[in-house]
Amino acid sequence: MRPPKELQDALRAGDNFLLATHISPEADALGSALALKEALGALGKRAVVYNRDPLADFNKFLPGFQGVVSSLEGLDTKGMALVLIDCNKPERAAVEGLKFHTSIVIDHHATDSGFGDVAWVVPGAPATGLMMLGLIKALGLGITRDMATNLYAALAVDTGTFRYHNTSPGTLRAAAELAEAGASPGDVAGALYHSWSAGRFKLMCMSIGGIEIEGPIAITTVTEEMYRATGTTASDTEEFAGIANAVDEVKVSVFLRELPEAGGWKVSLRSKGDVDIAAVAQRFGGGGHKNAAGCMVSEDLVTTKRLLLEELRKII
Amino acid sequence: MRPPKELQDALRAGDNFLLATHISPEADALGSALALKEALGALGKRAVVYNRDPLADFNKFLPGFQGVVSSLEGLDTKGMALVLIDCNKPERAAVEGLKFHTSIVIDHHATDSGFGDVAWVVPGAPATGLMMLGLIKALGLGITRDMATNLYAALAVDTGTFRYHNTSPGTLRAAAELAEAGASPGDVAGALYHSWSAGRFKLMCMSIGGIEIEGPIAITTVTEEMYRATGTTASDTEEFAGIANAVDEVKVSVFLRELPEAGGWKVSLRSKGDVDIAAVAQRFGGGGHKNAAGCMVSEDLVTTKRLLLEELRKII
Repeated sequence: MRPPKELQDALRAGDNFLLATHISPEADALGSALALKEALGALGKRAVVYNRDPLADFNKFLPGFQGVVSSLEGLDTKGMALVLIDCNKPERAAVEGLKFHTSIVIDHHATDSGFGDVAWVVPGAPATGLMMLGLIKALGLGITRDMATNLYAALAVDTGTFRYHNTSPGTLRAAAELAEAGASPGDVAGALYHSWSAGRFKLMCMSIGGIEIEGPIAITTVTEEMYRATGTTASDTEEFAGIANAVDEVKVSVFLRELPEAGGWKVSLRSKGDVDIAAVAQRFGGGGHKNAAGCMVSEDLVTTKRLLLEELRKII
Repeated sequence: MRPPKELQDALRAGDNFLLATHISPEADALGSALALKEALGALGKRAVVYNRDPLADFNKFLPGFQGVVSSLEGLDTKGMALVLIDCNKPERAAVEGLKFHTSIVIDHHATDSGFGDVAWVVPGAPATGLMMLGLIKALGLGITRDMATNLYAALAVDTGTFRYHNTSPGTLRAAAELAEAGASPGDVAGALYHSWSAGRFKLMCMSIGGIEIEGPIAITTVTEEMYRATGTTASDTEEFAGIANAVDEVKVSVFLRELPEAGGWKVSLRSKGDVDIAAVAQRFGGGGHKNAAGCMVSEDLVTTKRLLLEELRKII
């Protein structure tokens, strides 16, 4: 995956970068940012990885995670180049309203905002990590073991470790290249799938116990009370959204998380095959990909379910 | 992965083959056998894929599965060459006592029996499917779309779709090659992981709801009553044994299935990393690998758990 020349030029021209990723980041966002930070360092430049959210435990296997900052205090952003990674709107990374001397976007989300002095947005790319691998090689740098682990984790997360339909021959070839460069597929999978807290596991057992299957639609709900009972938080629900898709007849999995401060529900949608749920999420003011999208619904639980079911039944 | 010349010679010399795989076959056994059948067909030879067990539903996505026979009636095996695939003892494939004019073994299991006029056993290979890919190419044949799907499924099953530590750069490169040749990673994963019956999913929810975690040991139990309540059978518990290994602190996952006719419990053990549970299974008359083993315990549930916990606590 070859990045445009003006992106390479912009990175070579700057010397002080803020690498900002979307809130609630997963390994595609953070792994891509950490790999780029290392690459910029190898080019003699300064770079800081910023995320508004404190680092979740499940991301603490990514090499260099200790350097991620969740505050911009003391940074003179006006003298910095912003790089938005795995998102393309400043709001998604909580950097809106700040001034930068230039702005760059590297993202694979379909809903391109048009933001950025230089933007490289490839909606067809399975992961931002795959774009980042191409970028780092285009910059003439070798892939270190740490970069390989960060980028392998990025690919793994966004393809469900090569289970989703976005897994192309090129994705697998890149994964092979990264494993060759020192990433351990077994270790990354272990960190992603075998390092749950007991509370998180209990939360999953609880939420799974309450799954409602209505023909091709499954609904899983996590309430504030369930977080309290298990000593967990919203970040512990990563990966829950698609669990009900194990069932053959289920074509769309709806995952509802209570957000009392916002007076509503965060909705994650996961669909199978040709069922495109991006438009449904957009109808509620959200967005995403064909098989993975999300939105917010500020209604009570019963109304939220009804509204979602109404829209989903139009497409399946 | 290059097969020995005498193996290629033996395949070229024969013209009527029985391709036999181990009982309770998964996609590494059947996919490898079906791909070899197609390859032998392309060389103008006759080949039959045999498995003693009727085909399980979860294998019915493998191209050519309809041709698998579970009876040897009407076959004159004395005139055939036996190829044992993904096992290396005739007993494992339920073909002991039969006469063949020659016997060939293609397998990656560590416990090589020494059987076979020609044997290609590579314990380090992550899957027999990877060996079969090398063999078919060595025979000078192109990889068709059906072969690719069968071999991709073989690789996927035996590496946990590239999550286990046996996932090498070469495995991922082979997967890329097979995807290039027409295998769909998303479709294969869908068939493996997203085609559960609603009953099977309910059974999983039930059994997960009852998981007991005692420090580093998790115990999951499935009773006859749970099968009845969900309209499922023992074969629906495939993949359940390791679920509790998601929890970081859990090092051994114990899975108990009630077997009323045997008056006891079928025990599956799954461990992480360096915890070797093969010896524990052996102490109860069973066996297996370091991280995956099994045995039978003919006691009531409380006693079964106590006996297993006693033995397991000696090693963790």
